[in-house]
Amino acid sequence: MYVAAEGKDYRTVWVEGAPYPPVVHMIDQTKLPVHFEIYASARVETTYWAIKDMIVRGAGAIGAAAAFGMAQGFSENQPEEARNLLNNSRPTAQNLSDATRRVYEAAIGSERSVRTAWETAQALADENVEACEKISKFGEVLIPDNGHVLTHCNAGWLAMVNKGTALGPIYNVHHQGRGVRVTADETRPRGQGALLTAWELFNEGVPHVVAPDTNIAYNLQGKGHFGEVNVVIVGADRIAADGSVANKIGTSVVAALAKRYGVPFYVAAPTATIDLACLDGDAIPIEERGEEEVKYLQGALVVNPGSPVQNPAFDVTPPEDITGIITEHGIIKPTTEEILRIKSAA
Amino acid sequence: MYVAAEGKDYRTVWVEGAPYPPVVHMIDQTKLPVHFEIYASARVETTYWAIKDMIVRGAGAIGAAAAFGMAQGFSENQPEEARNLLNNSRPTAQNLSDATRRVYEAAIGSERSVRTAWETAQALADENVEACEKISKFGEVLIPDNGHVLTHCNAGWLAMVNKGTALGPIYNVHHQGRGVRVTADETRPRGQGALLTAWELFNEGVPHVVAPDTNIAYNLQGKGHFGEVNVVIVGADRIAADGSVANKIGTSVVAALAKRYGVPFYVAAPTATIDLACLDGDAIPIEERGEEEVKYLQGALVVNPGSPVQNPAFDVTPPEDITGIITEHGIIKPTTEEILRIKSAA
Repeated sequence: MYVAAEGKDYRTVWVEGAPYPPVVHMIDQTKLPVHFEIYASARVETTYWAIKDMIVRGAGAIGAAAAFGMAQGFSENQPEEARNLLNNSRPTAQNLSDATRRVYEAAIGSERSVRTAWETAQALADENVEACEKISKFGEVLIPDNGHVLTHCNAGWLAMVNKGTALGPIYNVHHQGRGVRVTADETRPRGQGALLTAWELFNEGVPHVVAPDTNIAYNLQGKGHFGEVNVVIVGADRIAADGSVANKIGTSVVAALAKRYGVPFYVAAPTATIDLACLDGDAIPIEERGEEEVKYLQGALVVNPGSPVQNPAFDVTPPEDITGIITEHGIIKPTTEEILRIKSAA
Repeated sequence: MYVAAEGKDYRTVWVEGAPYPPVVHMIDQTKLPVHFEIYASARVETTYWAIKDMIVRGAGAIGAAAAFGMAQGFSENQPEEARNLLNNSRPTAQNLSDATRRVYEAAIGSERSVRTAWETAQALADENVEACEKISKFGEVLIPDNGHVLTHCNAGWLAMVNKGTALGPIYNVHHQGRGVRVTADETRPRGQGALLTAWELFNEGVPHVVAPDTNIAYNLQGKGHFGEVNVVIVGADRIAADGSVANKIGTSVVAALAKRYGVPFYVAAPTATIDLACLDGDAIPIEERGEEEVKYLQGALVVNPGSPVQNPAFDVTPPEDITGIITEHGIIKPTTEEILRIKSAA
């Protein structure tokens, strides 16, 4: 949650305006940290572009935006087209297709389908906030007093509707006055760690340092700015039935080195992120994004002109590298048995 | 070696002008790949700044620049001051203090100390070229026909006086028509892979792709643009007596993942890079560079304003992650026994 100078506070994604239809609003994450701008979308098509172009990004925030987009589809009387469009915006995020399915199925048979769609979408967004609160509570015990947490990409409140998953426990510990320090991986190509996580931590007053992704081994050996790392906490975009976790590219690099150097590695994610249809990590589709994201960073050309680049948005961390998964129903081991148990509790 | 449009070819570092003193010239690597500029240094102080500000960078090129700088120190009749100054420019590079020591010791007792200093520096530069040729020849057998090599940072001819170490074997295979493809890690913060290695490969016509450093696990799993990686080859800035290798930050991340996924990992470096005074990796000093290198990339602000950053320039790869070290005297295992044998052969 961002509290602006004038005292107004913001969720990452929300609706405003008299029903129906209200206008979908989101913080424009492509403009942060230099500019704080609100992107207002009155139609499903602009909501689709907001997701695709990462104006809104992060598993939970994408889910909420897609849910509201689905409601826009009902308002525009084209629910099937809207669902297809939204589902094609970002292929890896589990929350997205889950969100559109849920709103679609609730509203399609309903007598007041438009109202039901908006209410279902709002309920989904509120549940995301609630899940993050619970995840933060379960996760905070993993951080010792004056502990040092390393995180990758951004799984803070900007990635969710509010509060965040990986950063939620950190905020709790910070507000309890127990002391916590954070190393944020830069997370190239889009630099969500350097730009978004650092911005969140800076606003909250949490001591932190931004480290290039090349520093991962150095940091996990305890040689970085804050010394020994007590725990790694990251988010997730989709979790397979065997406990494999798709998350921002580079996450599996962190996990492998954390295992090697004996640092506990936790994934924080609501059970909505679990996709039982994916039996293992190989079944999770990995989005390949455009080359301009690698070639340009904040407007500057950073690759030799004429050289091709690659840009997978995610990688898959195998369950053997994961110490535990922090869900809104508790912390589980990354095994099929535990995944099935927690998913059916949801 | 860069062959310009007008047919003139360039080493990375060279001298021009009637003796004595000639003027030290180097390709300005901070301007590449967009601009090809020559930095001319007539005094040891400007040579010092060229090394410190990474106008010249890479183990062998730094060594040659420092050797010529040491000769400038003799021309300026201040050899002790020059040696101290140069040795303080970049603390991790072994070739640097080795080069200043060699020129200093050859010239200090000599009757014609200025001439001896310049001749010794030139001999050192020429030996670097020769060593690279031999390393390239020994290394080429490690690359299968139509093979795929992954490299980190830049250990091409820009890092040496000519030819390069890690890229030398690639150029040989390419010119033999055997076919070779290269994945170049971007190598944040300074992006030597994306900017310098990509520029070299582009000029030589070697098929290549630039990958963000977060793609390391993804690539070594064989999922990147060119599929399965046959071999990793990187350079070295200093090699300890136990076979530990200090090289550009992130190298040890690549090595750990290469080992995990069964990809052979080779270090290519002249024996001048070996420092027997460092018994193991912990004894190698690691340079911490300025924060502006992380905060800005090609002029753009890429980190949240107000957030601190860290910037270690190197990390240490343990011998157990290294398949072999390619030297000008052959390929050795990273063991103390082999290191001692090859160093005494030098």
